[in-house]
Amino acid sequence: MRARILEMAEEQFRRIGYHKTSVTDIAAELGMSSANVYRFFPSKGAIIEAICGRVVNEVAEIAFAIARTSAPASEKLNRLLSAIHHHGTTTLIKEKRMHDMIVAAMQENRAIIKALIERLISIFEVIIREGIEAGEFKVEDPAEATRAVKTAFTPFFHPILIEHCLQHGEDIEAGLREQIRLILKALGKSY
Amino acid sequence: MRARILEMAEEQFRRIGYHKTSVTDIAAELGMSSANVYRFFPSKGAIIEAICGRVVNEVAEIAFAIARTSAPASEKLNRLLSAIHHHGTTTLIKEKRMHDMIVAAMQENRAIIKALIERLISIFEVIIREGIEAGEFKVEDPAEATRAVKTAFTPFFHPILIEHCLQHGEDIEAGLREQIRLILKALGKSY
Repeated sequence: MRARILEMAEEQFRRIGYHKTSVTDIAAELGMSSANVYRFFPSKGAIIEAICGRVVNEVAEIAFAIARTSAPASEKLNRLLSAIHHHGTTTLIKEKRMHDMIVAAMQENRAIIKALIERLISIFEVIIREGIEAGEFKVEDPAEATRAVKTAFTPFFHPILIEHCLQHGEDIEAGLREQIRLILKALGKSY
Repeated sequence: MRARILEMAEEQFRRIGYHKTSVTDIAAELGMSSANVYRFFPSKGAIIEAICGRVVNEVAEIAFAIARTSAPASEKLNRLLSAIHHHGTTTLIKEKRMHDMIVAAMQENRAIIKALIERLISIFEVIIREGIEAGEFKVEDPAEATRAVKTAFTPFFHPILIEHCLQHGEDIEAGLREQIRLILKALGKSY
């Protein structure tokens, strides 16, 4: 039942926007009472949170899949940074309503986004440490370097900034490739 | 007269917020008619733009002053990145209403902010080229490196992101120092 409610809510959020969808609408589409929906989710906010959680898991799954490959660390980092960026722009372009919902959720409930950032940072750190062990990177403090790498890519990950850049026709793809080159250099990668 | 209107407008924006201040209020405080204000500024938006222009010039002046010193390039870059960040956080903390006005202006009128970014990028590039000539930096494409440096510092410059970080108690100062270390390494600076 939880899954059915989430599925229907997500479909309505995509179709008419999370703002205009009420718990009553979701219940009506499922042919049940609002009270029944509230048995599973205490509020519309809780439904939004659960759907954002799904998106968050999607991004984390992509990251884990890349981390598990046997490519060199620099290549993994390159793919991972590109993949996270592309997930964000694809959501913005193809599913604007989901993007808007994520932006709103980011402002109202940072916990779920913070958790995603922490998971991604851990994966970055695993890859950076791999690169150090393989002699590919020269970094003194892997934790510090990881945090700085994450910060350097904020403009390519942050939904609000992605939206700004696309609105103003900036060449964000070229910027991303330049940024990846700079960061690999900062990690001591030689060409 | 232009200067007096701007001064009064800025004072009211600081005191009651740009949103709640009307051209009529500004005119009344100056003991003149709204029509007279409109002779100098076609709209409230034009007044806001002129005041933002002043803030923009302030930041540019700070940057030029640092660029003119005789410190090594890495030290100049360090001071410059810190100074821009501090200007942003100081405005946010001490002059929240000015900060809010700048954020609104950024969203409505990008031209003036874009002009500031271009000026700052030029100053970054001058310093990076100085560092290359002095043998302090090892960079193949100074223009590319400059753009990437600017992007890497977006989280410390962008008014919306600064606000997010401060709201959530992140140690933004420590993050800035780490980011500067990473970027100097990317520019080939050895310690």
